[in-house]
Amino acid sequence: MQTDMKFNQCVQQQALENSNNKVWKWHIQDPASQRLTWNKPPKSVLVIKKIQDASLLQPFKELCVFLTEKNMIVYVESKVLADTAIAGDESFGAVIQKFCTFREDLDDISNRVDFIICLGGDGTLLYASSLFQESVPPVMAFHLGSLGFLTPFKFDTYQSQVTQIIEGNTAIILRSRLRVRVVKESREKKSIIMTNGDSEGSRKSMQYQVLNEVVVDRGPSSYLSNVDLFLDGHLITTVQGDGVIVSTPTGSTAYAVAAGASMIHPNVPAIMITPICPHSLSFRPIVVPAGVELKIMLSRDARNTAWVSFDGRKRQEICHGDSITITTSCFPVPSICFRDPVNDWFESLSQCLHWNVRKKQNYLSSEEEEF
Amino acid sequence: MQTDMKFNQCVQQQALENSNNKVWKWHIQDPASQRLTWNKPPKSVLVIKKIQDASLLQPFKELCVFLTEKNMIVYVESKVLADTAIAGDESFGAVIQKFCTFREDLDDISNRVDFIICLGGDGTLLYASSLFQESVPPVMAFHLGSLGFLTPFKFDTYQSQVTQIIEGNTAIILRSRLRVRVVKESREKKSIIMTNGDSEGSRKSMQYQVLNEVVVDRGPSSYLSNVDLFLDGHLITTVQGDGVIVSTPTGSTAYAVAAGASMIHPNVPAIMITPICPHSLSFRPIVVPAGVELKIMLSRDARNTAWVSFDGRKRQEICHGDSITITTSCFPVPSICFRDPVNDWFESLSQCLHWNVRKKQNYLSSEEEEF
Amino acid sequence: MQTDMKFNQCVQQQALENSNNKVWKWHIQDPASQRLTWNKPPKSVLVIKKIQDASLLQPFKELCVFLTEKNMIVYVESKVLADTAIAGDESFGAVIQKFCTFREDLDDISNRVDFIICLGGDGTLLYASSLFQESVPPVMAFHLGSLGFLTPFKFDTYQSQVTQIIEGNTAIILRSRLRVRVVKESREKKSIIMTNGDSEGSRKSMQYQVLNEVVVDRGPSSYLSNVDLFLDGHLITTVQGDGVIVSTPTGSTAYAVAAGASMIHPNVPAIMITPICPHSLSFRPIVVPAGVELKIMLSRDARNTAWVSFDGRKRQEICHGDSITITTSCFPVPSICFRDPVNDWFESLSQCLHWNVRKKQNYLSSEEEEF
Amino acid sequence: MQTDMKFNQCVQQQALENSNNKVWKWHIQDPASQRLTWNKPPKSVLVIKKIQDASLLQPFKELCVFLTEKNMIVYVESKVLADTAIAGDESFGAVIQKFCTFREDLDDISNRVDFIICLGGDGTLLYASSLFQESVPPVMAFHLGSLGFLTPFKFDTYQSQVTQIIEGNTAIILRSRLRVRVVKESREKKSIIMTNGDSEGSRKSMQYQVLNEVVVDRGPSSYLSNVDLFLDGHLITTVQGDGVIVSTPTGSTAYAVAAGASMIHPNVPAIMITPICPHSLSFRPIVVPAGVELKIMLSRDARNTAWVSFDGRKRQEICHGDSITITTSCFPVPSICFRDPVNDWFESLSQCLHWNVRKKQNYLSSEEEEF
Repeated sequence: MQTDMKFNQCVQQQALENSNNKVWKWHIQDPASQRLTWNKPPKSVLVIKKIQDASLLQPFKELCVFLTEKNMIVYVESKVLADTAIAGDESFGAVIQKFCTFREDLDDISNRVDFIICLGGDGTLLYASSLFQESVPPVMAFHLGSLGFLTPFKFDTYQSQVTQIIEGNTAIILRSRLRVRVVKESREKKSIIMTNGDSEGSRKSMQYQVLNEVVVDRGPSSYLSNVDLFLDGHLITTVQGDGVIVSTPTGSTAYAVAAGASMIHPNVPAIMITPICPHSLSFRPIVVPAGVELKIMLSRDARNTAWVSFDGRKRQEICHGDSITITTSCFPVPSICFRDPVNDWFESLSQCLHWNVRKKQNYLSSEEEEF
Repeated sequence: MQTDMKFNQCVQQQALENSNNKVWKWHIQDPASQRLTWNKPPKSVLVIKKIQDASLLQPFKELCVFLTEKNMIVYVESKVLADTAIAGDESFGAVIQKFCTFREDLDDISNRVDFIICLGGDGTLLYASSLFQESVPPVMAFHLGSLGFLTPFKFDTYQSQVTQIIEGNTAIILRSRLRVRVVKESREKKSIIMTNGDSEGSRKSMQYQVLNEVVVDRGPSSYLSNVDLFLDGHLITTVQGDGVIVSTPTGSTAYAVAAGASMIHPNVPAIMITPICPHSLSFRPIVVPAGVELKIMLSRDARNTAWVSFDGRKRQEICHGDSITITTSCFPVPSICFRDPVNDWFESLSQCLHWNVRKKQNYLSSEEEEF
Repeated sequence: MQTDMKFNQCVQQQALENSNNKVWKWHIQDPASQRLTWNKPPKSVLVIKKIQDASLLQPFKELCVFLTEKNMIVYVESKVLADTAIAGDESFGAVIQKFCTFREDLDDISNRVDFIICLGGDGTLLYASSLFQESVPPVMAFHLGSLGFLTPFKFDTYQSQVTQIIEGNTAIILRSRLRVRVVKESREKKSIIMTNGDSEGSRKSMQYQVLNEVVVDRGPSSYLSNVDLFLDGHLITTVQGDGVIVSTPTGSTAYAVAAGASMIHPNVPAIMITPICPHSLSFRPIVVPAGVELKIMLSRDARNTAWVSFDGRKRQEICHGDSITITTSCFPVPSICFRDPVNDWFESLSQCLHWNVRKKQNYLSSEEEEF
Repeated sequence: MQTDMKFNQCVQQQALENSNNKVWKWHIQDPASQRLTWNKPPKSVLVIKKIQDASLLQPFKELCVFLTEKNMIVYVESKVLADTAIAGDESFGAVIQKFCTFREDLDDISNRVDFIICLGGDGTLLYASSLFQESVPPVMAFHLGSLGFLTPFKFDTYQSQVTQIIEGNTAIILRSRLRVRVVKESREKKSIIMTNGDSEGSRKSMQYQVLNEVVVDRGPSSYLSNVDLFLDGHLITTVQGDGVIVSTPTGSTAYAVAAGASMIHPNVPAIMITPICPHSLSFRPIVVPAGVELKIMLSRDARNTAWVSFDGRKRQEICHGDSITITTSCFPVPSICFRDPVNDWFESLSQCLHWNVRKKQNYLSSEEEEF
C-alpha cells in the first residue's frame, strides 16, 4: 500500500503555538524514501521497443519469452509487430500469439497495464510518457547501449531485475511532467491539424503531457523570436532570441543544459525557464515553484511567428493571439530506479554529460617556494 | 491560526487504487497561498538597525515613536543605543526608556518577540536570521535606499504598512535556511576560537543557521582549493577551483548568481551547489532536493587548507579531518511580502540584477527583402 | 596618402642580434592610430537606405539634397527609387534626376564610389558589405533610432559630420570580413540555385564575403546538427548541438554573444568559433588567429542535413560531401568612426548590450562590525 | 637568420591606388610559418627544474649528462644544487663541476643563455619567464607527468628532440607577455617591500613581466572588490565582484577560463579582461587589441583594499591612489613547439581541459517516425 506516501520533496510546516506567537518549523522528508510496492501482484506489462533498430530484436524477443513464462500479459504496439524480423520469426510465433496489441491514438490502454518496460534509449521513455495523458504506470527502462538519464538499467541481468520489480519494494522516483495547453485562434485560411484537440467556439485547443520540455523557437525564420512570458497572469518578461525552453527538472539535463541551465535533480518540485541564445546578456535561466501557471504568447510587436514542440514532437506554428499555457501536471511518470534517486542521477551526470570531469592541476601553481 | 498551513511548494501524491494498480496523481499547491495571521494581537517587536549609518537615524526614531504609541514593546540591541546620536538625543529619551534591550550572544530573546522590523539593506535580514538559531519570528524589512532581494518595503508609507502587519493577513514567504555543523578535529598546537560550540571528546563542533549561503574557498592561498563533496554519505565529486557555494534558493541570487548559477525562486525546496571558478569546464551548478545531507571535507591530496564562512560571517579555517555538514534547517525565516512571493521576486530580479534588461533589436536582421 | 599604413593590430617582431643569439623583441602599434585620408577630394558617394521604413524618408531626402549641393555624385539603388514616396515627390525630382542608379547583382559599381553613407540600422551596413565582394569603400553609418554596433553616427549633425569626412582625416577602423566558399557536390535530382556561382566539373561552388558571421545550424530539423570542424586541414572537433557560429570580431557582439561568446574588439585579427547550445558541457567558444583556414562539413554519421547562412542571408542546405571553407578576407570594411575605434566600441557595448550595467551593492555584506 | 621574421598574426594592409580612391586590401600571414633558426650553433643552455620533486632527479641528471656530452655550457640555479640528492651524488659530481650557477635576483644571465630547457609542469615556464625581464631565450618545456599548456614535450625521446632544437629549424610560437607597472603612493606608516623597484619622489614603482595573467581580487576581505578599469586613459567600467583577471592569450586557458572566458589561441595579439564572479549579470569577458594601455585603480568609493598578483606570485595589497598599468610587453616568450602552434594548442585543450569531450547522443531524439 502506498496511501501513506508523500511526494519526497515535501517540506511540511508545523505551526506550533507558544504563549503568544507561533513556532515556525517544518519537517523535510528524505528524497530516497519513496518505494514501489504492489497491492496485488502485477499481471500485465507494456513492452516498448524503439523500432528500426536491429540490435534490439534479440533482447526484445528474450524479454518477451521471459515475461510470458512468468505468466505476465504482454502489451505490444501493433507497429512493432509489423517488423518482418519479428512477425516472420517462426520460433517467436507462439509468444506473439499471446501478445495484446494496441494502436497509438486509437486504442485506450490506460488502467490496463501494471507497469512498463522500455528498451532502447531516453526516447523510448519520452514516447511511453506520451502514451499516457493521465496516470502513468511505473516504468522500468533499459539502455541497450550507453547509460541514459532516463534509462538506468543494463540488460545483462534483466531476469533478476525484472523479477525484483514484480516482487515489489524497489526505489522509485516520481518525475514531474508539464501539462501544456495550446489554444489557437481560429483562422479561416489556414487548415490546422488537430491532435487531442477540441473546439471552443472559434478557438481550438490541444493538450499535451511533456516529460522533458516545451520548446518555443523561431523555427526556420532568420529573425529573433519575440515572445511574452506570463506567470500567474502577470507579464514577467519578454524573450528575444532563438527561443525559450520550459522544462521539468528531468528536462534540465536535456536541451536546457545545452542552453546554459543549471541541472536540477528530478525530485525538486520546480519548473525551469531557460532562454535559447537570448539577445540580452543578463537573461540568466530561472527556476520557479512547481505550483505556478506559465503562459507564452507572441509579443505584440513580433514580426514573425514562433514554433512550439513537446519533448521534440508535434512541432507546430504559433501565431498572434495563440497561447501556450503550462502547469505542472497532476500525473508524474513513476520511474523505477536502478539504485536510488540520488545515486542514479549522479551516475548519469557523470556518464552522460561528463560533469566535472577534470585533470587534477594547480593553475595558480607558481609559488615562489617551489623553485 | 495557521495549523492547517502547509509549505507552499508542497506537492502531495495521492495513491488512489483502481482494480489492480494505483493511480499516480498528485496535488500541487499555489505558492501565493501562504498568509501571516495572528492567534492574538502581536505585542512585541524587535527593531534591527544597521549601525554606523547616519541616514537611518531619523527613520529609526520615527519608527520607534510610532511603535510605542501603538503600545508595542520594542526590543533593541544594546549596541544600537551606544550610538551617541541616539543616546544623546533628549527628545528621544522617553522612548528609549521604554525599550527592552539585549546583547547578541548573551541574552536569549527567542520566544519573546512577535515580529521583527529591519532597517537598512539585505545585511540586516541576514543579521536578524543569525540572532535566531531556532524558530524565527516573521520579519518585515525596509530598504532605505534601493530595493533589495530581502528588503521589499519602502519606508515612505511605513505607518500603514506596519499597521497592516499588526492587524494580520498579509502575504508571507518561508525562506529556507541551511543548518550547518562544523566539526573540527582537535589539534594541540592550534588555539581554536569557538562560538556556539560544544566539545565532543577530542572534537569540537559548532552550528550555524544560514539564510544565503555557506562558502568554502581557498582563502588567502594562491593554490586551488580541493574539497570533496558528499551527498547522503556518498562522495559525489571533488571541487577544484576557487571554492564552492552551498546556497538556499534565497542565496541563489546573491553570491551564487555571480558564480554563474541559475536563479531559484525562494519557494522551491532545494539546495544549490555552485562551484567558484572551477578548474573543470564541465562543472555546471546543480540543484538538489531540500531533504539531502551534504558534507564537505578537504580532499586527501589537498595541499592547502580551505576557509568557510556563513552568510559572509564567522570566517574560519578548515583543515584535514574537519567536516562541514549541511542540511535544510527546520527553522525557516518567515519573510513578510510587500505584494506576494512571485511579484516581489521578479521585481527584485529586475531592480537588483537588471535581469533581462535589453534593447529591442533583431540581430539576424539582414533579410534580403528589406533592401 | 596611406601607403605607409599598417593594420593597427600589427605586432612586428624584430630579431636583433647580439654576440651569439638574438634579442626577441617586437613593436606593437596603437589601435587608434589609423586615419582616413584622401589622395584627391572624394567625388562620388553611395547612399544606402533601408527600404519600407517611412521614418527614413525625410532624412534620406535632406541628405541627398545636401550632397548634391556639395557637388557629389550620388549613387542610389534602383529599388529605393521605386518607392512612390520618393519617386512621386515633385520637390525632390530635381535631385533624383542627378542620381546614378544601379541594380544589385546586375550593375558593377566597384571602383566607382569614393565612400558610402548608410541610413538605418546595422542591417544597412551588412547589406553594404554584401554589395562589394572585393575592395569596399569607407562607410559612414547613421543610426536613426538607437545606437548600433555598426552605426555610430547620429543624424542630428549630419552636415558637419559629412563635411568632415569629405575633408578627410577622420578615425577609421578596418573591420575584417570572412571569405566563405561553399562547394556542393553535384546531385542530379536536386536543382540548386546558384548565386555568384561557378561550376567545377561535377561540383558547384559559391563565394561570400561576410562581416558578422557564418552560421551552420540544424534548420527546421528536431535532431542535433553534427558537423566536423577542420583547421588548416586537421579535424579539430565535432560540433553536436543546435549549430556553430564562425564570426569576425565585429560579429562577436551579434549572434555569437547571445550564444555565450566573449566579446572581441574589431581591431583584433582573429576568428571566433562559438557552438550554439552544444551537447557537451565543456564546449567553450574559442578564438583562433586570423590567418587560419577553417572548413566545416557534415559528420559522416550525421542523420540530417545542416543549413548555412551568411550575415543572416542566402540561407541554404548543406548535405553530405558539401564543404564550407572560411578564411579571413583580404577585403575588410573600412568603417568610419564617430570618435575612435576604442571609444565607439565601449559606447556600443554599453548602449546596445547594457554591458556591466549594475546596481552597486555589497553582496557579502554582513560583516560583524556592522551591527 | 630571422631578420625577415614577422609576428605571425601580422595582418598588413596595403593601400593601393586606383584612379580616384584606394583599394583597401590586406595580406594575412600563416600562423604556422614561424621557425626557430640559429645564426651560429647554440652553446649555452639554462636548465630549470622544479625543486622538491624527487621524480625529476633522474631525468634532470640524464639530461645534464647528455648536454655536457654535447659540449653545451649548462646554466643551473644555485638552489637546485642545494638539494643533497644532487650535490651528494658522487657519480654526478663531474657534471656538476661543469655547471655555471647563478642566483635569482642577484646574478644577471640575460644575453648569456642561448635557450632554456624546463622540467616539470607549467609552473617552470612561468618561472623561466620571470627570470627574464627583457628578451627571453627560446624555451623547450618537458612535462614529466601529464601534458600541460606550456609543456608540450614528452621526456621519453628527449635526446632526439633536444638534438633537433640544437640543429635548428623547429616550429616556435611567440607567446606575448604583459608588462605591468605598479605605482604605489608613499605611505608613511606602511613599510612596503620593493622588488625590482625604484623610487619616484614620493611614489614607489615596480615592474613585472607576466606570461599568464595579472589578478586583482578582494584578498581575504569578505567585501566585494571595487576597481576602476581605464583603457588608453578613459574610464571604461567598474568591476564589482571577486576581482578581475587581465590575461594574455596564453593565460586565457588558465585562471581566465575558470572564470568563464572564451579560449584564445596564443598567436592572437590581444589582451583578455575577465571579471571574477561579477555582481553584474551582464559583465561578459572582453578581448581588446594588444596595443592598448590598461590601468586599474581602486574605485573612489571602495570600502576595502584590493590585492594583486602576477602569474600567481608577488601578491601585494593595492590601496587608494595606487595604480596598476598594463601593456603588451615588447618581450614575448619564444616557446618551442612539439608539432606546431595550432596542433599543440588543440592537443592541450583536449588533454588538459577535456574541451568538447562528449558522449554522442541526440537529445531531441523523440521523432515520431522512430516508434
